Amino acid sequence: MKPIKVGLLGLGTVGTGVVRIVEGHQEDLSSQVGSPIVIERIAVKSLDKQRTISIDSSKLTDNPLDVIRDPEIDVIIEVMGGITGTKEYILEALDRGKHIVTANKDLMALHGSEILAKAQEKQCDVFYEASVAGGIPIIRTLIEGFSSDRIMKIMGIVNGTTNFILTKMSQEGASYEAVLSEAQELGYAESDPTSDVEGLDAARKMAILGTLGFRTNVELEDVSVQGISNVTKEDIQYAKQLGYEMKLLGIADRQDDQLSISVQPTMVKNTHPIASVHGVFNAVYVYGEAVGETMFYGAGAGEMPTATSIVADLVAVVKNLKLGVNGLKAIVPYKLKKLKTEEEIAFKNFILLQVADKAGVLAQITQVFAEFDVSLASVVQTPNEQHTDAEIIIVTHDASQANMNKVLKHFEGLDVIHRVKSVYRVEG
Amino acid sequence: MKPIKVGLLGLGTVGTGVVRIVEGHQEDLSSQVGSPIVIERIAVKSLDKQRTISIDSSKLTDNPLDVIRDPEIDVIIEVMGGITGTKEYILEALDRGKHIVTANKDLMALHGSEILAKAQEKQCDVFYEASVAGGIPIIRTLIEGFSSDRIMKIMGIVNGTTNFILTKMSQEGASYEAVLSEAQELGYAESDPTSDVEGLDAARKMAILGTLGFRTNVELEDVSVQGISNVTKEDIQYAKQLGYEMKLLGIADRQDDQLSISVQPTMVKNTHPIASVHGVFNAVYVYGEAVGETMFYGAGAGEMPTATSIVADLVAVVKNLKLGVNGLKAIVPYKLKKLKTEEEIAFKNFILLQVADKAGVLAQITQVFAEFDVSLASVVQTPNEQHTDAEIIIVTHDASQANMNKVLKHFEGLDVIHRVKSVYRVEG
Repeated sequence: MKPIKVGLLGLGTVGTGVVRIVEGHQEDLSSQVGSPIVIERIAVKSLDKQRTISIDSSKLTDNPLDVIRDPEIDVIIEVMGGITGTKEYILEALDRGKHIVTANKDLMALHGSEILAKAQEKQCDVFYEASVAGGIPIIRTLIEGFSSDRIMKIMGIVNGTTNFILTKMSQEGASYEAVLSEAQELGYAESDPTSDVEGLDAARKMAILGTLGFRTNVELEDVSVQGISNVTKEDIQYAKQLGYEMKLLGIADRQDDQLSISVQPTMVKNTHPIASVHGVFNAVYVYGEAVGETMFYGAGAGEMPTATSIVADLVAVVKNLKLGVNGLKAIVPYKLKKLKTEEEIAFKNFILLQVADKAGVLAQITQVFAEFDVSLASVVQTPNEQHTDAEIIIVTHDASQANMNKVLKHFEGLDVIHRVKSVYRVEG
Repeated sequence: MKPIKVGLLGLGTVGTGVVRIVEGHQEDLSSQVGSPIVIERIAVKSLDKQRTISIDSSKLTDNPLDVIRDPEIDVIIEVMGGITGTKEYILEALDRGKHIVTANKDLMALHGSEILAKAQEKQCDVFYEASVAGGIPIIRTLIEGFSSDRIMKIMGIVNGTTNFILTKMSQEGASYEAVLSEAQELGYAESDPTSDVEGLDAARKMAILGTLGFRTNVELEDVSVQGISNVTKEDIQYAKQLGYEMKLLGIADRQDDQLSISVQPTMVKNTHPIASVHGVFNAVYVYGEAVGETMFYGAGAGEMPTATSIVADLVAVVKNLKLGVNGLKAIVPYKLKKLKTEEEIAFKNFILLQVADKAGVLAQITQVFAEFDVSLASVVQTPNEQHTDAEIIIVTHDASQANMNKVLKHFEGLDVIHRVKSVYRVEG
């Protein structure tokens, strides 16, 4: 059988994993698709770099265009990352009728709709399973597994770095700064961790999941984002006392056709399945109107898990190629997007206040919540024997974001409130 | 657009759910497949039965052949259950070029290979996502999501009834008999619960998962089966003390290409993700050589979760129909099956012994394990102030089943052992 020829853009960790799987599982793969799969050309940054796998040097080039313009190549696997430049390579490859498999969440979150439109025009496949939650086949699950259902809510732990940090803080009572340093030493966090810890990486993935789950075009700017850099060990201790785990959750939900998509540190009831996802693991919880609760758990990153998803996409492309149906099953968002306003977005809140320790304070504070129509689930004042400031912990029922903002604004003018120490979303 | 016409065999709980989804989500579905989907004819047991949905009575027939032989119908959804009769209906439908979606695990476990061979001959789709773990899209995950990986182990909680019983026994310290009665009252267990509690239902599902995961023809008789009817509340208490949860686990594993598939009550380390799957929920844990640990969690049964999977399969069939590629992506087992022998199957064991309470007993017992090459992880003798019988709890390291059987055989001849109270597989 004539082999299927693949071009690889990038030979870092994940690219190396792809080569390992395609070569190591060749028999399994060719049994599935009916012909050998050959990695024909590979674009690398440096031709001279020492590598952990042996590669015929004639396959290497430092010019991605050599790969994209090779007429023998049917499929391009993009694992070089980046946005500018990479986008143009992918668009040119599509123009030349080549199918794309990519792990590039940044590119898909920012330019997914343009790339998918070009793919449709050229009847090419663009698959990107590896862009969200590395080893978990969540994208094909949203597209195919739940095609008949109406997905109402997606909650994801989609960033391993922040989950590692929060897990360690919770299990060891350590501070954010201490655990971040440790994560950097272990290679779980980058030297500039901003994209992870400020929630940007998670936001990109939630834009992709929201688009697929709700079949509308969720863009990065539709996602409200808050990171974990202000989470204190005190917050996590309070969370545990109340029966919650602190997690950086991406949450996409809808009521009727009104959407909201956000990423924020969230206190999750410890009986919820996603509360027990620890360390660098990822999980995506999906609530469907008909199917109810489901959750998908696995490695979020890493050479081999990510490479597995990429090669599974490659197998799907090659099967389509043999059947002559590439580009025909792509999901194209078809619903008009309606984002919820601050009045419509509602959830439970945890609020930690530092207040004057004197009679009547609690009455003044609860009065403010009542005034703005926020009803309370629990109010606890911590015992304070020194008669310095006291702390009050409040958990609300579902309250609109608009009303909560009014409450917090009003707190600024209240003398008895010395500081609003923390405010967190609560789930489950 | 010309509508796609579907015939439904069976209108019980799940069939009703299918009608609800196809009618309720019509807009969503037709946007995905490009034409309306119409349930054209429905075979029912009784034409006069009161139903919870309103159905045009002209669509109903009490003769399945009216549905199968209707030339207008493209796809048959089979939710009538049963094996004899049903199998013939499905084979005839395939002969007539109709595609099949079924939830029938019994049929697929027993006659899957014959049905899939006929489907391939006729270039028809046979999809059966709903046959295992109702709402969890585990079959498409094994076929597509992990197509590039080598799956080494599948562990499943694939029977909700037994998981409900074991969860209740664990959480409430109740006896098997008491919880079974409660489950029967709640409708979670049938009046004859044998198929569930003796592990037969789980075994059928594991035959299906093993076939897909290992790409070889796992038959029901290849699955060794033990149910939960002998699990005592004492066993569960001991399990908890040692940090385990008792679960009825289906386990399919391989080393190189040697397989073993079994269903048995298993003590699972409580830090393992599958240990926290409670109540009627199902979960399938998959360990892939490259992807590592993954787990898929959701409702195992119920009208709407099961119907969701069926309609997702229907969408896939209709997409293939539009593309003209039905029957071409079916997975056909292609590996020779090699089952592990008793010498090759190895796992950890928990053993609870009732022994004479006198000096030297422990030495005699540990000597037996040593003789048959079974090494021990822990031995605990429970304190016994009455100087009647004592209890000894042993956890082994991985030991071959053959050696373990020799140990247990040898115990029969040892006077100091008054009873082997329990033996369980241990995982995690």
